[in-house]
Amino acid sequence: MPRPAAPIDFYFDFSSPYGYLAAEKIDELAARYGRSVLWHPILLGVTFKATGLVPLTVIPLKGAYSVHDIERSARYLGLPYTHPSGFPLPTQHAARAFLWLNDRKPALARAFGLAVYRAYFVDDVNISDLGTVLNIAAGLGVDRDTLSGVLAGSEIKTRLAAEVDLAMARGVFGSPFIFVDGEAFWGVDRLPQVERWLAEGGF
Amino acid sequence: MPRPAAPIDFYFDFSSPYGYLAAEKIDELAARYGRSVLWHPILLGVTFKATGLVPLTVIPLKGAYSVHDIERSARYLGLPYTHPSGFPLPTQHAARAFLWLNDRKPALARAFGLAVYRAYFVDDVNISDLGTVLNIAAGLGVDRDTLSGVLAGSEIKTRLAAEVDLAMARGVFGSPFIFVDGEAFWGVDRLPQVERWLAEGGF
Repeated sequence: MPRPAAPIDFYFDFSSPYGYLAAEKIDELAARYGRSVLWHPILLGVTFKATGLVPLTVIPLKGAYSVHDIERSARYLGLPYTHPSGFPLPTQHAARAFLWLNDRKPALARAFGLAVYRAYFVDDVNISDLGTVLNIAAGLGVDRDTLSGVLAGSEIKTRLAAEVDLAMARGVFGSPFIFVDGEAFWGVDRLPQVERWLAEGGF
Repeated sequence: MPRPAAPIDFYFDFSSPYGYLAAEKIDELAARYGRSVLWHPILLGVTFKATGLVPLTVIPLKGAYSVHDIERSARYLGLPYTHPSGFPLPTQHAARAFLWLNDRKPALARAFGLAVYRAYFVDDVNISDLGTVLNIAAGLGVDRDTLSGVLAGSEIKTRLAAEVDLAMARGVFGSPFIFVDGEAFWGVDRLPQVERWLAEGGF
């Protein structure tokens, strides 16, 4: 029996519009080539300190274009998008909740991740709020008090920090960031290259 | 008789690898939809001062990825690419020569522009050198002494500066930068969106 192909690594920040667009597409794309996807939440605020980069939307000229490009890219990909009234937002609560769920029930974590992204980028919900994050999880059947206790503890904070450090050690500097068999791809606009890499084993 | 559709505007810096990749594709893409292309050389060094942006390759983490991504994107598009030993380079001589030629013989300017890009990004020629720029033009039949005189004058310098100011007034902050009927697209990775915009008149 052939050994199953290695999973794809998908790095994302919950405050990243292009990360949201990629999150809606990556599992289906990978599945077409017999691959699964490991989802890795990161904090761009931490990577920005290492690279000196800043959120796209605050850069003169580029900022105005970026919002327009995000909205157009969503239409191009057939996805709903409403630019949030608060942007960007701190996303550590959502990222930590994702990690904790993902250790236990990856499919549930996936549903939670997509629900958080859609709340933020479709329904303009403030996902930086701890109560909101807990409500989204509870809506999917997660015990609210248990998750609340987890997010109040230090263990999950240390864990997320270590995950972000590991991502940067692999070269991750943005969102979405994808690895296919060690090959790095940055941006939802690289999904066609990801697809060709999966189809041809490189090019 | 229907009025011909308006030309596409294509802004590029001769030191931009993604600009080179787009330059090899844009005319053919536009022609498929009955469009011509107006080529506009700019100087990213000037736009970077307005935006606070810096060349991709000097950014920690992002820099190493960028060179890899440029090389892979060239392969993806079926184009040759060799990352130049000197990068980026000042490109004002080539940009001014292009403008002067373009006022007189657009087809010749186009051939000159592609020759400069290929010299830099395929054959690793130092295109910042004035003599090299003159040689490339002379190889296409341009009178070397005439062009040399033009490039030594102040008129063409003022002209290029005004062209760059105009580009920034239109919102241009990078290379390649494309306008289709007023819609702005930044990056060679937006060519599929440009194509859909041309095909559908927007989306």
